[in-house]
This record gives sequence, structure tokens and C-alpha cells, in this order.
Amino acid sequence: MHPNVFVSADEIAAIRAARGQYALLDATIEADVVMMEAALGEPIETPPPGEAGGYAHERHKQNYREMMAAGLLYQITGERRYADFVRDMLLQYAEMYPALGPHPMSERQVPGKLFHQLLNENVWLVHTIVGYDNVYDALTEAERATIEANVFRPMLEWFTGEGAFSLDRIHNHGTWAAASVGMAGYVLGDRDLVEQALYGTDKSGEAGFLRQLDELFSPDGYYMEGPYYARYAIWPFFYFAEAIARNEPALDIYAYRDGILEKALYATVQTAWPDGTLPALNDGSLYMSVAAPGVVLGTDLVYDRYGNDPTLLGVARFQGQVILNGSGLAVARAYAAAETIPEMTWESVEFRDGADGEGGGLGILRAGTGEGQTVALMKYGVHGLGHGHFDKLGLILWDQGRDVLDDYGFARFVNVEPKYGGRYLPENDTWAKQTLAHNTVVVDGRSQNDGDRREADAMHADRHFFDGDASDGVQAVSAYARGYYPGVDMQRTVLLVEDDAFDHPILIDLFRLAADAEHQYDYPLHYDGVPITASFDLAGHADALRPLGDDAGYQHVWETGRASATGDVQFTWLDGNRYYSVTTAGTAPTEILMGRTGANDPDFNLTSEPLLVLRRRAADHLFASVIEPHGYYSGATESSVQARPRVAAVRVLGSDDAASVVEIEDHAGARWHVFVNNGAPSDGPHTATVGGQAVTWTGNVAVRPVP
Amino acid sequence: MHPNVFVSADEIAAIRAARGQYALLDATIEADVVMMEAALGEPIETPPPGEAGGYAHERHKQNYREMMAAGLLYQITGERRYADFVRDMLLQYAEMYPALGPHPMSERQVPGKLFHQLLNENVWLVHTIVGYDNVYDALTEAERATIEANVFRPMLEWFTGEGAFSLDRIHNHGTWAAASVGMAGYVLGDRDLVEQALYGTDKSGEAGFLRQLDELFSPDGYYMEGPYYARYAIWPFFYFAEAIARNEPALDIYAYRDGILEKALYATVQTAWPDGTLPALNDGSLYMSVAAPGVVLGTDLVYDRYGNDPTLLGVARFQGQVILNGSGLAVARAYAAAETIPEMTWESVEFRDGADGEGGGLGILRAGTGEGQTVALMKYGVHGLGHGHFDKLGLILWDQGRDVLDDYGFARFVNVEPKYGGRYLPENDTWAKQTLAHNTVVVDGRSQNDGDRREADAMHADRHFFDGDASDGVQAVSAYARGYYPGVDMQRTVLLVEDDAFDHPILIDLFRLAADAEHQYDYPLHYDGVPITASFDLAGHADALRPLGDDAGYQHVWETGRASATGDVQFTWLDGNRYYSVTTAGTAPTEILMGRTGANDPDFNLTSEPLLVLRRRAADHLFASVIEPHGYYSGATESSVQARPRVAAVRVLGSDDAASVVEIEDHAGARWHVFVNNGAPSDGPHTATVGGQAVTWTGNVAVRPVP
Repeated sequence: MHPNVFVSADEIAAIRAARGQYALLDATIEADVVMMEAALGEPIETPPPGEAGGYAHERHKQNYREMMAAGLLYQITGERRYADFVRDMLLQYAEMYPALGPHPMSERQVPGKLFHQLLNENVWLVHTIVGYDNVYDALTEAERATIEANVFRPMLEWFTGEGAFSLDRIHNHGTWAAASVGMAGYVLGDRDLVEQALYGTDKSGEAGFLRQLDELFSPDGYYMEGPYYARYAIWPFFYFAEAIARNEPALDIYAYRDGILEKALYATVQTAWPDGTLPALNDGSLYMSVAAPGVVLGTDLVYDRYGNDPTLLGVARFQGQVILNGSGLAVARAYAAAETIPEMTWESVEFRDGADGEGGGLGILRAGTGEGQTVALMKYGVHGLGHGHFDKLGLILWDQGRDVLDDYGFARFVNVEPKYGGRYLPENDTWAKQTLAHNTVVVDGRSQNDGDRREADAMHADRHFFDGDASDGVQAVSAYARGYYPGVDMQRTVLLVEDDAFDHPILIDLFRLAADAEHQYDYPLHYDGVPITASFDLAGHADALRPLGDDAGYQHVWETGRASATGDVQFTWLDGNRYYSVTTAGTAPTEILMGRTGANDPDFNLTSEPLLVLRRRAADHLFASVIEPHGYYSGATESSVQARPRVAAVRVLGSDDAASVVEIEDHAGARWHVFVNNGAPSDGPHTATVGGQAVTWTGNVAVRPVP
Repeated sequence: MHPNVFVSADEIAAIRAARGQYALLDATIEADVVMMEAALGEPIETPPPGEAGGYAHERHKQNYREMMAAGLLYQITGERRYADFVRDMLLQYAEMYPALGPHPMSERQVPGKLFHQLLNENVWLVHTIVGYDNVYDALTEAERATIEANVFRPMLEWFTGEGAFSLDRIHNHGTWAAASVGMAGYVLGDRDLVEQALYGTDKSGEAGFLRQLDELFSPDGYYMEGPYYARYAIWPFFYFAEAIARNEPALDIYAYRDGILEKALYATVQTAWPDGTLPALNDGSLYMSVAAPGVVLGTDLVYDRYGNDPTLLGVARFQGQVILNGSGLAVARAYAAAETIPEMTWESVEFRDGADGEGGGLGILRAGTGEGQTVALMKYGVHGLGHGHFDKLGLILWDQGRDVLDDYGFARFVNVEPKYGGRYLPENDTWAKQTLAHNTVVVDGRSQNDGDRREADAMHADRHFFDGDASDGVQAVSAYARGYYPGVDMQRTVLLVEDDAFDHPILIDLFRLAADAEHQYDYPLHYDGVPITASFDLAGHADALRPLGDDAGYQHVWETGRASATGDVQFTWLDGNRYYSVTTAGTAPTEILMGRTGANDPDFNLTSEPLLVLRRRAADHLFASVIEPHGYYSGATESSVQARPRVAAVRVLGSDDAASVVEIEDHAGARWHVFVNNGAPSDGPHTATVGGQAVTWTGNVAVRPVP
């Protein structure tokens, strides 16, 4: 019975009846209609295979999008021309495909025939088979026979033969292979293909889709390469899962591994910033968002297959579209029925990393609602293979709709051919991956693991504690990174504190280093915007700039200014409509380096961004800082209020392996004490000695006004 | 009869009846209600005078806003508490004001008593008198007597006595003085005050409001300091004009000087970029927009008092508010009645500069509609006094909602106290005003007039021709700047061309220099975004940066790269979702300087922005360039098309005092010839000799495909 892998005849009937009623559904159908009107007005093209990113490559990609859309539109509208389009295009492929050999331009990867890498051909088949499934009944037996014999069958032979390495791989490329083979198996009624997809080519279960579900996500659904890659990785998982659910309900795929598919979707969308973009962790882009098609697919399926979570409707708002099956219809209907425009407000959350959940994690603290949320994110998981960055204990702060303390993400202009062919730029290795490119301490001017990926992949940071309960105004995440630098252990505890004394949540950052010998500790802050004032002389260099160093990313930073301070260090900048100040306790003399990326960058591949580095020499040391958003600025109305911070001083009252105690004082003389348990986590009482007196608090962290 | 200066009882009745019907009206009233709810919840404060930008200063400013709003709300709602608020605040001022002497902190300007400069006190009175006018009938005779005797009368004595210099000045400060004195005269029924305001303190007509209307705008309504200042300058003009129209209709003020008030409003809003922001000409901000209150006032009055121009409703869209009188009601009503959301689409326009219209001008070429317009602006007017920049023949290009080739505007953070007290930064003189900070040729590394303002104020650039008719796809503006550099005359002709071969309008820029001796010519382009590719080796400096020079702004630019080229120079960058390429004919060897602002800037006062400089040595020379927007890029979808330009070459076929002829060739071999008349403008036939052959065209410019 067709269609059977993505949508059913009943769902099609419901979608047809629903047209004109639900904005998201109508928008989706309309976008497909517009795309197909353009396609139907042009001759069908199936060009000979070409280079990656070139015309033929892009044409074949567009062809699969059009075949899937045309198949669905045929079902929804009943218009024969859509079915004819899929038929004619597939018949044209049928004339070309059997004669194709392996693509000549593959490099270090399994080739496809239409595309230089098998991956693209897997993706092509996943979408095309959905289109075929939808027009199956509109084709003659002879047409189907021609298409299957000359396109799908030889393609599947290639995938399961030459491509077996990819199909059996526990890797997201393997998932695309499995999805393509499995979905084609269902559509063609070929059980053998389905079993190879589910259990590996040898059907042992050592490989295949279920094994991929076991191993590619942490028990919390986190994908080790980070959200930018997760948004792509989950795409084939959901396509194939949905096909399985429809064809083999007994497998109960959505319950598999304690509902890992649900967790994988949440672990993607819950990492999103309040504006829907995904954090640029590892080799990630600053611009990818929950509107990516794999996330649209996952969001709609999870909404419908699991508990109709209304926050997913807030995700759908950023997507502006749904998938064209019963799940997409359910989302469109619920979205239209919502009393107010759905808002995406996630709670604070921690995701464990590593397939076994023992590889550290990712902690996200959130305050506020919707797009007005303030978010602090700390990364303390596994390295993440080839796309990993040497950035354990890295911090990103999001506020007023922007990344106030940011991560550079990758150094790459995807698909921009004149920019190094759209590939990762050389500066991705020499800058973006280096520790200095992140908001985490750099020891002795070297990157973590000295930039050695194999060493980094063999270890991970460690969770310490996570308190995402905002009810008392104090949330916190704490983690360790041990062994990333020889002889230096690191612990970072970040608190997001809502206190009536401050107009916005403030961030308290305690970055603790423990070492037997003295080291150079660089604490970088990748701010953006305009320096406003500082407790030190900003001392911008007048007539010459030099790079900050020779390697480990330092060679890419122009030193734009240098100053020194013996007491607290305070620096205020303006970003958007808000001022930000960092105040760091003067526990050691500080050399302050002002920098800007762009050195040793002959092709201007790096974007020009400022950073501030606080440099100290110490053995055991605590960088105790408060990052305070304050005031308001508008260039349009030329208004400015509270351009100076409220925090006047930060003092370390004590810090050792047991606890850290820090005092914050504001300009009015009000004081707060911050208590952090550095030892084994516990919700019980903790004690530290401050000024000869024992102080006691309950839980891993506490913030108390000083009477 | 009260109210009588801003709104009438009939208009109030109409506004009351209209509540709940028109979004713009409701939004305005609601904003005032919200502001007043906050004000009514706090004690009234009339603090002793303080420093500019300080608490007392800002409090007195907020007080006048509240008194004007409260007066209007009293009329509209009939709620007594609003009238009481105005009364109580004025009675509190009445206790303080008589004892005040001249403000001690005035510097080089006429002091006020509440404020350090008289200007602020004039502004205070203009708004306060509207508030008083509206609550006049709600006060007892005794209350009015107290307020008038202790606030308005002594204040007006100060304005017309010690402040006579300001009142009699032909300057926008004088207009505020005149408006305050005249409007108070109408409200207090004092004809003497009105006449001093209209005709000067000696009533001779040598000064006063009418003389200001004669002299402060060009015959086209252009305000010589530029749109950023115009948005403030027109504010008192419209307040007082409206008061005059209501009290002395026989003066027919809106018809005065051939409708100069209408022209002044249009010369402000028609300079706006498609997103409503105003060009940052001279000491202007990048962020000021048509939503500024003086422009809201002028827009509503001009809409109602002149021809109900629907494009002004498009301006109102950016304003999101109206004024609370009959004119504001008319705008709100028409806006609500519009069938589609009104869009601001101005035609191309030229404004003559100088009070007599003989001081050069400003030319604005526009293609497209609404926020999608492409705009090229060239500045060739008078210097503009103390706020003027040395930037004659400066070009700004606006496309896809941003300033693609931009002007730095001022170096200032208005009202940001820690940033040099919110005043003009030292870098405003040393960078922002310098010629290099603009898109215009710098000769011999010196600014125009060698940066001497008096010399610059004594001259002006000259209009050549302007063709804003887009019907043939070719629009053009041309102007001369003679005498700005010793021995070097300059002519710039800019064409905005819509041709089916290009997806977006392209800009053809012919910058011609005529000199007897060889000079260094620097052609700067202040682009923004990411360099993508170039015909030369970008050659970013690896390990040291030095300033481009020692003065004239060069000391503020880090030289980030240097290359040389003998043929055409082509450079492509990515800005937003679009690529841009400049292709400049290789008529002379070119030294290419890549730069970035920030050198000799110890306090990090300058924003960091890239620029490209093409440097040549020549006597007579033509920089012939095509600036081509092309392709599409999206980081969100990772799509990129046409990252390389279509233009392949630009050739100068001939250029002399009579004409310039340029050939453009694209990658497919298609060619166009561009003809520009350099002599006396004429719509008739022109002839040039190209390659020994006479070519003829009609009109000042022509662009023809080469068969």
C-alpha cells in the first residue's frame, strides 16, 4: 500500500480538508507550490555528475527536493502534473544512472555516482523515495519497473555493496545510508534491505540503525559533536524512525532506548538560544537555527509522537513551516489554536555527554522568558572527534538577543566557492579550534591537550554539580577539567543570579586553577561592541600593532592595547542597547591585554572581533568575576542610563579544594557573599573558614546578602 | 480661548470620539498614559539646576514632557488629576524660579536659569506652554497669576532681555527662542511677545521667525547642516508655525516663502534611507531616524496642512505615533484606512543647498520600492559650519537595508557620560571630519581645504546635472568640486543603472580629477563585511600593523594589507545576504591599501571598520568604477549563489573636459558603453571621439549595449 513511509492516505485526506485553516500548514504547502511552479516551467535536468558545490551537484540536490514536494503535492491536490513530474524526472534518471561509474572526484571517502560522496546520494534517495512512494499508484507497472530497475536497484546495490562501509558505520553518515536503504526497502517491499538497514549488512545488529541509536547520542540525547551537527544528524534518524513506526509498529521505535529519539530532539532544540539559533559549539556556525529541515522534521514528529509539548509550538514559530504529514498537521492545528503566539521558553538543563553519559556534559542556565532570556552555557563534555574544539570549561553568555560573550564557531564560509571552496579555512585549525578563541582559561599560552585531537578524544571533562532551579534566584553549574594541561587542574563554577538589586541577571564566574608550580593563566573574554570605561588605562597602542604571540591562536590576535593593574580589574563595554561590566577580584597583579583578531590572516578569512585577556602568573589561583549587564542605551533616541556598573568590588575571602567564598560589594556599600562547594557535590550543609570564622551554608552554592 | 496654540476644543472632541479606532492614535495616547501613570506615582521634583546631562538637567527635561502630555490627556480624558499635575508642578516651579540667577555652568553661550544653556530653557517653555494652555481653564485665576508672575513672566523677560542675542539669531537656537516667546505670547495674550518672536526684538523684521524661515533653508527646504540636524531644527519651526496658523491665519504661514515649511519637511524625510534612518551626513548619527519627535510633528502637520500625501503615511509607519491634535488624528485615520500597510517609497530627488539655492546640493538616486530600495547619495553642497565635514563629492550607497558604502558620521556617544561626557570625541575632529573618512578622493593625503573650516565655509561644490528619471533604467547625478585642493578640480558622476543583465541595480562611478601637475589620488571605499576575493593578492599583513599616515585621518587607519596592480582592480566582499564587487578600470598603476580604523585611538573611541583605498599618481585622471551587488548568501541556510561578479572589465575609452566614455564588459562578453557629458549640461545631443570615431548620444548620460 502506498504511500507508506512518510504519510498515509488518511493523513493526506486530513491535510486536504485542513487547507486554508492553519497558517503553518498553508505556508508550507504554498512554499512547495511556488517551488514547483518554477520547476514545472523549466525543462527537467539530470546533468552528468559534477564537482561538489557545482551546478550539477546543486541541480541533483534540487531535484530530490522537487520530487519529494511534487509527490506530496500530488497526493494533497490530486493534480496529475505533479505525479508526471516525478515520473518524468525518474525516467530521465533511469536513462543515465545505469551507465554511471563511481564519481571521479571523491577524496578519502566512499564515492556516490551522482555525487562525489556517497552521503549526498543517500540523502538524495531518502527524499526521492518519499516522492516515489507518493506517486507509486499513479505510475504504470511498466514505468515503475523501468525506474526501479534502472535507478533504485542499481543505486541500492551500490549502497549495500561498495557502500557497505558507510552503511555499517556508527556515524551520522551511516544513518543517512541506513535511512535510505531502509526506507527504500519499505517502499519497494524488500525485507532484506530493511534488515540490512536496521541491523547492518550482516544483519548481526553490530551495525545498523538500532546500533546507531544506541551509540550516537548520550543517554540524555546529546550529540557529541554539538548542536550544529545534531541538527543534521537527527534528520535521517527521524525519517527512518517514522518509516519504521509506520511499517513495523511492533518495533516501537519511538520508545527505543527509553525514548532516545525524543531526547535527541530535545537535546537539540533545548540548546537553542532564545532567538532560535543554535550555539556555535565546536566547528559550528553562528547562523544555524532550529529552522533547519532536520529539526523541523524532528519537532513535528516528537510533538505528535510524544506528549504534545506546547513549548515545541514555540520552536515551530521560528520554523514557520511544518512537515506534510499527520504530525505536521497536528502541529499546525495546535499552533493555530494557541491563545497567544507560542513562545519558546526552555528551563535550565544539563545534558550528559558520551554514549554512556559519563563523558562530562553541557550545562545551560536560563533566566527570564522567551526571546528576553539570559542564558549562560558551559561546555564540559567530550572533545567531539574531528569537529571538536579545545575549549573545555568554555562559557558563552547570551543576553538581549545576542551572544554577549561569544564563541567564534567555525572559520568557514559554507558553500562560498571563492572562499577556499567553501571548505573549512586554514584558520579553522589555527584559530577557531584553539583554546584562546573561547571564553576559557589558557595556561602557559598553549591550547588544551596542546591541540592534539587524539589526546583530547581520549579524555573528557567532568560534571561537578548543576542547579537549574531558578526559584531562589540562584542557578549554578560547576565542572572540572583535569589533565587538559600538564600539572594544572581546572574547575569552573558559573552562577546566574537574579537579585532585585540588579535590573538584569548577573553572572558570577569562579574559575579555579590548581597547580604545584607557577603558570601563566590567561582569562579571555570575547566581548563585542564598544569599550566604554575601565578601571585601568585602556592604553590603546597608537602606532604599531603586533600579534599576541606565535602560535596556539595567539598569532591571530593583534595586541591593540596593554595595561597592568594591582587591584580589581573592571571593564565596561556597550553591546546593543545594554552596557556590560566585568569586575574581577584583584587577587594577583594582572596584565590586561586588549586584542582583535586578524593577525597572520593574509586572505582576510577571519572576522575582526575584539577580546580582553586578563593575564596572571600563579600556581593555585581563582579568577573571581562578576559580569553585570546594566543600564540602557539607544542611538535612535540618544538616551543613556546607568552607563556605569553597580558592582564596585569583588573579593576572594577564601578558596581551596573544599570551598570558595567570594564577596561582592556595590557602589552603595551593599554586600553579598557567594559560597561554592568545591568538593564532592551535596545538597547538605557545607562549611568554610573565612577570616578565622566558620561559615556554613546549605547546598552546593549560596548567595547571601551581608547584613 | 484655550487651548489655542496646538490643539482646539473641536479637535479634542474628535480625538476623544476616535479613541479605540485608529492604532497610531491609540498607541500615542497609551504611551502618554503609561508615562503619566509612572509620573503620578512619584512626588513632583523640581531640583536646583545642575550640570548638562546630570540628574537635575534630565529631570527638568522630563518635567516638560510630562506637563505637555498631562495637559493633552486632561483635555482628551477629562480626568482632573492630569490638570492638577500640571498645576502642582508649575506652582512648585513658581516657588523656585524667581530666585534663580543665570546658570553658573554655561560656557561660551547664553545661560538659562534651569539649564546651562538658554536653548534647553526655550525647549522647556515650548512644551510647557502647550501643557499650560491645555489646563488653563482648569486653574483658578489666582493659580494662573502665581504661575505666570513667577515662572513665565520672569522667564520671558530673561529670553527677551539677556537672551535677545539668541532670539535675534538666524540659527536653529534662535528658532527655539522665537517659538517659545511667540507661543507664550499667544497663550498669555501678549502681542508684544508675539511680534518680538516674529520680527525680532526690535520688530524690524531683520530678525525673528520669518527671517529664519527665509534664511535657514535652501529654496528646496534643505537644511545646510544635514538631515541629522534638520530633524531637530524643524521641530520649533513647526510648533510655532502651527501656533501662528491657529492665531493669525491671515499670515498664511504655511504658504510663506512658497511653502518653505512643506519643503523643509520633505527635505528631511526624503533624505531618509528606506528603513527610516537618516543619512549620517556631517556630524550626524548613524541611528537617528524619521521617528524623531520633530519629524513626527512636521510629518503630521504637513500631511494635514498640505496635500494629504500618502507617502507620508509610510513615514508614519516608522514613527508608530502621531501628534495629539487634529493633524495627528487625520494621519491616524488615513493610516488605518489604507488598504495595505503604507510604504515609504520616495523618488529620486536633488536638493539645492544654500539659502539662495546656489550652494551646490545633495543628489539622491533611488531604484526599487519601500525597504528594498537601492539608494545612491552624493553630497556637493556647502560645508555646513561647525558640524560640516570635509567630504564634498562624498558618496553613500544603501542596499538591502544597510549602508553598503558608508559614512562614519560623527565620533560621539551622545549622553554616554563615561565616553567623554557624551560630547564630540577628539576623534570627531581628527577622523570623522577628515576627507579620508568618506567615500571621496583624497588628494596628496590632505583633507579638503586642508581641514580649515573657515576656508570651507567660504565655498561650495557645484551642481552639474541630475537625472532622476528611472523610466529608461539610467539615473545619474553629477557635480563639481573646484578649489577644494590647490590646483586640482574634481568632478564626480554617479549612475544608478537597472539593466536586465544584472539582478540588482549597479552603480557606475566616474570620479574625474583635473590638474596641471601630478598628485597622489586616494579613492577610498568604506565597505563593511568580509573580503571574499580580489583580482590582486589581498596580502594581509602578518605580523605588524602601522598607521596609514600621520595626519588628515590617515593616522587613525591601520594598514592591514597592501598590494599593487597594473590592470583592472576588482574586489568582492560579502555584506549581509549579498555580495558586492567593485571593478575599477586599470587606467594607471594602482597601489591597493587595505585598512581598518583604530590607530592612534588610546581610548578605543573609534568603531573598528574596514576600508579599501585605491591609490594612484596622476595629473588628469578618471577613476572609472562599477559597483555591482550580486548573488545571495545565507548563513542560516548555508546557501550561496553567484559569489563572483558579472562585470569582468571596465575600460576608459576617453575622458576629457567634454565627455567621458567608458566600456563595461561582463564575463559572457556582453559590453555596454557609458557616455557622460562633462561640459555644460544639456538634454540635447553630445559627441565624443572614441578610437578616432565620433560617437553621439542624447542627454547628459547614456548607457548603451554594444551590439
